[in-house]
Amino acid sequence: MHAIHQYQEFFISYLENQKINKEPKNLYEPIDYILSLGGKRMRPVLTLMTTEVFNADYKEALPAAMAVEVFHNFSLVHDDIMDGAPLRRGSPTVHEKWNTNTGILSGDAMLILAYQYFEQYEPAVFRDLAKLFSKTALEVCEGQQWDVDFEIRKDVTIPEYLKMIEYKTAVLVAAAMKMGAIIANASEENANLIYDFGLHLGLAFQLQDDYLDAFGDPETFGKQVGGDIIENKKTYLYLKAVEFSDSKQAQQLNDLFAVHSDDNDSKINEVKTIFNQSGASAATQDAIKEYTFKAFETLKKMDIELSKKQMLRAFGENLMGRKV
Amino acid sequence: MHAIHQYQEFFISYLENQKINKEPKNLYEPIDYILSLGGKRMRPVLTLMTTEVFNADYKEALPAAMAVEVFHNFSLVHDDIMDGAPLRRGSPTVHEKWNTNTGILSGDAMLILAYQYFEQYEPAVFRDLAKLFSKTALEVCEGQQWDVDFEIRKDVTIPEYLKMIEYKTAVLVAAAMKMGAIIANASEENANLIYDFGLHLGLAFQLQDDYLDAFGDPETFGKQVGGDIIENKKTYLYLKAVEFSDSKQAQQLNDLFAVHSDDNDSKINEVKTIFNQSGASAATQDAIKEYTFKAFETLKKMDIELSKKQMLRAFGENLMGRKV
Repeated sequence: MHAIHQYQEFFISYLENQKINKEPKNLYEPIDYILSLGGKRMRPVLTLMTTEVFNADYKEALPAAMAVEVFHNFSLVHDDIMDGAPLRRGSPTVHEKWNTNTGILSGDAMLILAYQYFEQYEPAVFRDLAKLFSKTALEVCEGQQWDVDFEIRKDVTIPEYLKMIEYKTAVLVAAAMKMGAIIANASEENANLIYDFGLHLGLAFQLQDDYLDAFGDPETFGKQVGGDIIENKKTYLYLKAVEFSDSKQAQQLNDLFAVHSDDNDSKINEVKTIFNQSGASAATQDAIKEYTFKAFETLKKMDIELSKKQMLRAFGENLMGRKV
Repeated sequence: MHAIHQYQEFFISYLENQKINKEPKNLYEPIDYILSLGGKRMRPVLTLMTTEVFNADYKEALPAAMAVEVFHNFSLVHDDIMDGAPLRRGSPTVHEKWNTNTGILSGDAMLILAYQYFEQYEPAVFRDLAKLFSKTALEVCEGQQWDVDFEIRKDVTIPEYLKMIEYKTAVLVAAAMKMGAIIANASEENANLIYDFGLHLGLAFQLQDDYLDAFGDPETFGKQVGGDIIENKKTYLYLKAVEFSDSKQAQQLNDLFAVHSDDNDSKINEVKTIFNQSGASAATQDAIKEYTFKAFETLKKMDIELSKKQMLRAFGENLMGRKV
């Protein structure tokens, strides 16, 4: 096994060799651009790490890890168009730097390129990887659609919200890990357990993202703290706050989230006070702990060496201990 | 073997059983909608027909034929967004009936759904089909990008134009036929020959589409005759007309294609006169004949019964004899 930062380095050096210097330039340059913007590369790192957890060489997992990262970036390019986002990781989004049509078409090409990375595996592994990938990719689309639908709905329930973030975020983390198990030819039981581990960790990660968006340290969070509040995003914090509030306070929240404020700072402070006083903040932290715990519980059932379990647990603790 | 209209019926009844009655509705309803708008279903019919040419049952080819049709419709949904097209087959386009974001996301889901249809085949066939599909799908994206690039370029050559229509249109016709060969476990040589047959027929078909767009019978063409001229599309007819014209006439063409006219009827008549007088019309008809001939030449090399060759030839003649 290697350390996380080593898997990152292995992946980044592989990625840098994949640059597509191909015509038509207007199709392929945006792909190289978005893939070079950086990020933590968490998903591909998980594929490499899981492959070694199940006793195969991480090198075998590089094409699958690349497929996962290319797909993740495809979804960012198309989501950024849908959200009208000007920036991604501090740089102009593809549709801003080029135009919407380029964003659509280069995104489409990325989805296809992701599938092509699986062609480097033998037929049975190829089929297992491509099947898992298609199922996951479709779920990510469904999650994105729920997210769009929820923007104009006022009756979103907590279970519906959890389903949305499961599909939009957690299933790709889970699939990234299960791919490692498939490549290492792990038992089906172990493959399903690592999927569940990734799914619960992915849910905990997204809930923590919701939490940190409001309560994170502006110095280290990377994104604008309070961004979800400014954009009236009905996150877990918001839904729990409405659930726990009396009708007067719920109406106040509803009013705050019905308009775009001229004074974001006071809106953020007002909303955060309600999140705290209603108990929504504590409930969100509880849910993060609950999903992290569920992830760790699946490790107990897994048939691998104790040292591997400790490593996965340390990874999870590190991820959940993030203050960024 | 069956008649073309029978393959159409087989395919349509299969298609009608594939309706996706699934949540989220805003993702899946547009998919059912675009797939139900009709069309000749030429590509899936070719997959069914080719499977029987190589002595397997067309029923085995239905999932692959569906994948081809779903992919073709995916490309229509995304292309219609890029072109800002209000109508498709006389009905509102997806992005008009819903919105651009729905068009992007439902299109993405269709691309993934297309891959999932291959999962019904055994691993080796699945891999061959998915590989061919990925290669083809990426070429279609490249063709679309060339088409977009050519709109603002003034120096497009005939070979570049032919490459563009090969990628944007012909490779999918070719792949639809090769998939039949793969499913029927035909020899690699036969599979490659049927691919070439489809590629040349696809090129002939697209050149004929260019020709009929200007010179087709308004009663039967389906699309608006002169549509390419109105939109200043630099088709084969245009490029040949510029090639054959003296500098004065070339400048006249260039001026006509630099603006959108208020009087489309007189613009269409003027341009058609130049197409005829310059010899571009005759050269386009020659090119159509040449590619059709090349398609028929590949049949000679194919190791199948004479009756099958006659059938494929009759299909080609029928397609090229279309007046619509």
